[in-house]
Amino acid sequence: MPKVVVFGSVAFDSIKTPFGSAEKILGGSATYASVAASFFSKPGIVSIVGSDFPEEEMDFLKQKGIDLQGLEIAQGKTFFWKGEYGFDINSAKTIQVDMNVLGNFKPQMPEEYRKADFLLLGASNPATQLDLIKQMEKKPKLVIADTRDYYIERQKEEVLKVVKESDICLMNDSEARMLFNTPNLMQAAKEILKLDSDLAIIKKGEHGALLCTEKGAFAAPAYPLENVVDPTGCGDCFAGALIGFLAKEGKVDEDTMRKAIMYGSTVASFNAEGMGLERLRTLKMQEIEKRFNGFKEIVRF
Amino acid sequence: MPKVVVFGSVAFDSIKTPFGSAEKILGGSATYASVAASFFSKPGIVSIVGSDFPEEEMDFLKQKGIDLQGLEIAQGKTFFWKGEYGFDINSAKTIQVDMNVLGNFKPQMPEEYRKADFLLLGASNPATQLDLIKQMEKKPKLVIADTRDYYIERQKEEVLKVVKESDICLMNDSEARMLFNTPNLMQAAKEILKLDSDLAIIKKGEHGALLCTEKGAFAAPAYPLENVVDPTGCGDCFAGALIGFLAKEGKVDEDTMRKAIMYGSTVASFNAEGMGLERLRTLKMQEIEKRFNGFKEIVRF
Repeated sequence: MPKVVVFGSVAFDSIKTPFGSAEKILGGSATYASVAASFFSKPGIVSIVGSDFPEEEMDFLKQKGIDLQGLEIAQGKTFFWKGEYGFDINSAKTIQVDMNVLGNFKPQMPEEYRKADFLLLGASNPATQLDLIKQMEKKPKLVIADTRDYYIERQKEEVLKVVKESDICLMNDSEARMLFNTPNLMQAAKEILKLDSDLAIIKKGEHGALLCTEKGAFAAPAYPLENVVDPTGCGDCFAGALIGFLAKEGKVDEDTMRKAIMYGSTVASFNAEGMGLERLRTLKMQEIEKRFNGFKEIVRF
Repeated sequence: MPKVVVFGSVAFDSIKTPFGSAEKILGGSATYASVAASFFSKPGIVSIVGSDFPEEEMDFLKQKGIDLQGLEIAQGKTFFWKGEYGFDINSAKTIQVDMNVLGNFKPQMPEEYRKADFLLLGASNPATQLDLIKQMEKKPKLVIADTRDYYIERQKEEVLKVVKESDICLMNDSEARMLFNTPNLMQAAKEILKLDSDLAIIKKGEHGALLCTEKGAFAAPAYPLENVVDPTGCGDCFAGALIGFLAKEGKVDEDTMRKAIMYGSTVASFNAEGMGLERLRTLKMQEIEKRFNGFKEIVRF
């Protein structure tokens, strides 16, 4: 039985960055997040792929200890995304999206998953995210929901409902500013806290992340990388490693949360060093621990 | 005799932000930097004002222990800047600039200043900055030069010479990206290190600052402020408090530098809480120490 349930996309990505390109490689938010989580706990995926999804990628996910009961295989093609990064490698331009089998996907949690204590909902339609929370047999210890500017622009009220119904609604700085109509991140974080949340986490990409509670703030740096090859999936790796570590520890107090954020930042930094999932495929737990500990020197004063 | 010599502008500013506005208040890079430095060491200013400069502001600077031998008073009007900040309070739009007496200013170091161990050169024409370094009787322990996109765009080669001739050339993230033509801040920092610098400091505004040496990196957070009233002068306060603290300690090793950056970040964060110099006028050393120590909790994991 998985300890962390991860809902999101499993995809083929075609990616071009100033430092490399790749065609139709494994991607998707649930893929990145569950592989990142697998370093710490057993994840289970809720997603869908087409009949074109290769056996060897199924094997790769299984090798990572990921439970695939919740991964539906449907007639048709797997979700496809094509994106390109320019000089400013922080944001991708979407060139092509083919929803394929993901278009009519109505995610259903396998029976076993409904008892899980840790639930990660990848960025998607807020109604789907809310429905998945309802499918849980009991209230999980922690529900993290990711969101995206696309939904904030079109379904602001529904996204605010997700903020209320989840324990942590992950967003990046520009999304937080947009959702709460303020340029000030601490003010946005305070608005999140007002919506029944004990804590708010705002992702700041290459600038790290900010954790806010009623008591104070934690400023998590990003690892100062010299060679960013491809940032695709870094946000999902951050969320996956974060919830994977919390599930391993079995608790969600602030000190554990701070460590979880640093593990999220660590795994995300490795992910950016290779095209697609390349770096994560060979990543070892020892390497994660070494960089995690290296962060202590990076913030020491 | 001043321990820190600060060259830059002394100005009148008219400022409008979403949270307040003020007409013809005291401003200028040398003013902010020397007031910030004064919490730690005795600064001396090299600058110019017009005959319209009020006696009470002279008295304020004197009360802060700032040496004014190098502050020329010329017939005419003091430099004037009018700027406006929008929803994104991080960058100002310049509405009006009247150079006035600053237009033909040829800065001359008073004899006493030429022996100083710590020199801070506010953003200005690179030729002026290089000339001021030459005016020093002996090589100071530390020369920090600030720069600005305006000079990087128009006088790139001269700015690179300032990077070479100074110990630290301060720039913000977008300026560093522009100067070294890379989106990656760590790569920009490495380019700075190649130019005869032992260390590179890149300011990231609300995201803090990055210190890079051959050995590694230090990621300094900015204080997570809920109420930014006016960011004018924050970069100058950062530089001023940083060099003021180093001058007080009398050394520039990496551990001292890390602390100095955090004091810079601390004083800058207070400065942002009021219009113009308002907050710095009443700021107490105890408040600085309290917030500096609070940073330890903000980065703890």
